[in-house]
Amino acid sequence: MASWIEQGGAGDPGRVHAEGRVVRDAIERARESVAALLGTTANRIVFTSGGTEAANAAIFAAGGARRGAPMICADVEHSCVREAARRSAEVCRLEVDSNGRIDLEHLSALLAGARDAVHGLGDGAGGGGGDDDGAGGGSIGAGADRDRPALVNCQWCNHEVGTLQPVAEVVALCRSAGVPVHLDAAAAAGHVPLELDSLGADYVSVSAHKLGGPAGTGALFVRRGLRLEPFVMGGAQERARRGGLENVIGIVGFGAAAAALIEPGRLTAERATALHLTEALLEAATSVSDVSALGDTDSRVPHIVNVAVGGVLAEAVLLGLDRSGIAAHSGSACSSESIEPSPVLAAMGVDPDRSLRLSVGWSSTEADVEAFAEAFPQIVERLRALGNAV
Amino acid sequence: MASWIEQGGAGDPGRVHAEGRVVRDAIERARESVAALLGTTANRIVFTSGGTEAANAAIFAAGGARRGAPMICADVEHSCVREAARRSAEVCRLEVDSNGRIDLEHLSALLAGARDAVHGLGDGAGGGGGDDDGAGGGSIGAGADRDRPALVNCQWCNHEVGTLQPVAEVVALCRSAGVPVHLDAAAAAGHVPLELDSLGADYVSVSAHKLGGPAGTGALFVRRGLRLEPFVMGGAQERARRGGLENVIGIVGFGAAAAALIEPGRLTAERATALHLTEALLEAATSVSDVSALGDTDSRVPHIVNVAVGGVLAEAVLLGLDRSGIAAHSGSACSSESIEPSPVLAAMGVDPDRSLRLSVGWSSTEADVEAFAEAFPQIVERLRALGNAV
Repeated sequence: MASWIEQGGAGDPGRVHAEGRVVRDAIERARESVAALLGTTANRIVFTSGGTEAANAAIFAAGGARRGAPMICADVEHSCVREAARRSAEVCRLEVDSNGRIDLEHLSALLAGARDAVHGLGDGAGGGGGDDDGAGGGSIGAGADRDRPALVNCQWCNHEVGTLQPVAEVVALCRSAGVPVHLDAAAAAGHVPLELDSLGADYVSVSAHKLGGPAGTGALFVRRGLRLEPFVMGGAQERARRGGLENVIGIVGFGAAAAALIEPGRLTAERATALHLTEALLEAATSVSDVSALGDTDSRVPHIVNVAVGGVLAEAVLLGLDRSGIAAHSGSACSSESIEPSPVLAAMGVDPDRSLRLSVGWSSTEADVEAFAEAFPQIVERLRALGNAV
Repeated sequence: MASWIEQGGAGDPGRVHAEGRVVRDAIERARESVAALLGTTANRIVFTSGGTEAANAAIFAAGGARRGAPMICADVEHSCVREAARRSAEVCRLEVDSNGRIDLEHLSALLAGARDAVHGLGDGAGGGGGDDDGAGGGSIGAGADRDRPALVNCQWCNHEVGTLQPVAEVVALCRSAGVPVHLDAAAAAGHVPLELDSLGADYVSVSAHKLGGPAGTGALFVRRGLRLEPFVMGGAQERARRGGLENVIGIVGFGAAAAALIEPGRLTAERATALHLTEALLEAATSVSDVSALGDTDSRVPHIVNVAVGGVLAEAVLLGLDRSGIAAHSGSACSSESIEPSPVLAAMGVDPDRSLRLSVGWSSTEADVEAFAEAFPQIVERLRALGNAV
């Protein structure tokens, strides 16, 4: 990105002049890399201003295609998915277990109800009960079945505790019910392999900064054959799927991060390193008394773990860690600009004010883990002693 | 921006740790500079992914506040304004003259009709006829007057021909009618002084790349006392007015461009240089036979001029200029990724396929103008000779 800026490539990629063509070429090379990382082709990728806009765009498009129909969404989804779904439609809340994993049986039941609605009310248009070849997906919305959901939203993994969701099963259930599905893969892309073309989901949102790219850039995967009604209206950028001059510098950075991750063996190596570091973090944290792991530690993304710290407020732990040069996060209300404690953790039956999220990235090292292992027990001990003294 | 990237400031500005605070500080410094450039205070500024998103956000918020009410919009508005307004509401088309300047009498008539509707139908709630102190603006939407517009959209200047719009008069008319007004200042900000706090408009959208900043960043000014319903839903970023992790690198660049432009005398000097260069471009172009200026050449932004080139297609001229190292633009259908000729020029009664937009920026030089003055007559002559030979 820095070298791109120094070169001064600042033409409008929608123009016919040489300055524009240089920029167009850079954007399309980035699109190829991002598509390869996601297991799809460049045409399927719409660049956005981030995972949040990508999720908004998917929900807006699916909601617009079936106005008045409900959407399915669990409370463990990211706020952008929950809030955008709530704005677009009545939301059917999908149940989760104590690890934050969605309940497939509940999803089946919700979709079976929808399928019954199709069979009871509709005329079979839209491919209702057995749309396995995907050809009928574009015609959803033709039926009179108001109860059939406009969209199922499901995260690839939970962004606070790391638990992987059963996305293949979710997609299969949705396809057989003829209901479109949006996967929020912001916390998963670049950390686990995504083979989007073979998966069959309709929309998948990703974020550049979660995989080593810059903040303010993301992408929406749109299944072949599905027309995307633009969320941001304007010019015909992104093949008329997203208005507004492209964030060229951000897209160049997103492409560079994706290009690094598609080098042979790189993703596997990054995963192994991240898993090793987070296991060490988890071991260091849970070696302190009354500290326990949250989420599914066996089936999780490699780079995120979360612990419940008994007897102290997470915010105080975060401040202590910060003084030791360690940046961590919590679902507590005071740990971010949001004024609400995390509904994600609340949905799992966990106290957000005791949660501590520990995550690693491409630049994290063993030394970082050692710094945490040294600082964390002392911080917790001191805070507990203070609490007992009051 | 390059040095910011090299320093590696990549923390989430919404977090409590040192890495986040460094980024928060950079964003807020940028916000101060942008606010100062626009003649307002930092709290009024919401960063967006560009002018297009900013316009979408203003139109979404105003439309949501008065569902079912029409919006006023001229055909000379940028596509993002026209398309977003059309999606949100029934659009009342505001008439323009042959320079692309909106017709104030027509606006008065549209608003008087709306005021009559208020007086005829409503109960006076919402400050209908004489809301000069601005205190009632936030309560718009309370009345039963469905005909009163949800929003008047007006560009600060035309982005294709440069004609300045009578924005102070537009704002005064809207305020006295109790109708919110959105000004698209993307093509004006950084080129002419904007004193937004004293102007009294409700929403003003701006774009970083139009004033020397990067593509993919912009801002929406929101009048004091007006709550902005977020367009992009998600976290509580931008004081809960725009979800999604901030495009930090882009915002840093936007701030740097604004900081340069608020140096004493800088905007005045940039204006004088731009005016001098565009006058020279206009003189060089119109010295060729059957080439005439479009738009109001006396009351225009300093950096944009536009000419009608008789007897040749603009696309061919653009390709010829490109071969001479000159990047220009046209309203012709083939000159951008849009497949439609410019409705802006069509609204002025001008043939988009003959139009040639010439604009300068902070890096443009006398040598650039000389290169144009040398190349343009030869290109037009050659194309006309080819046309006559066919």
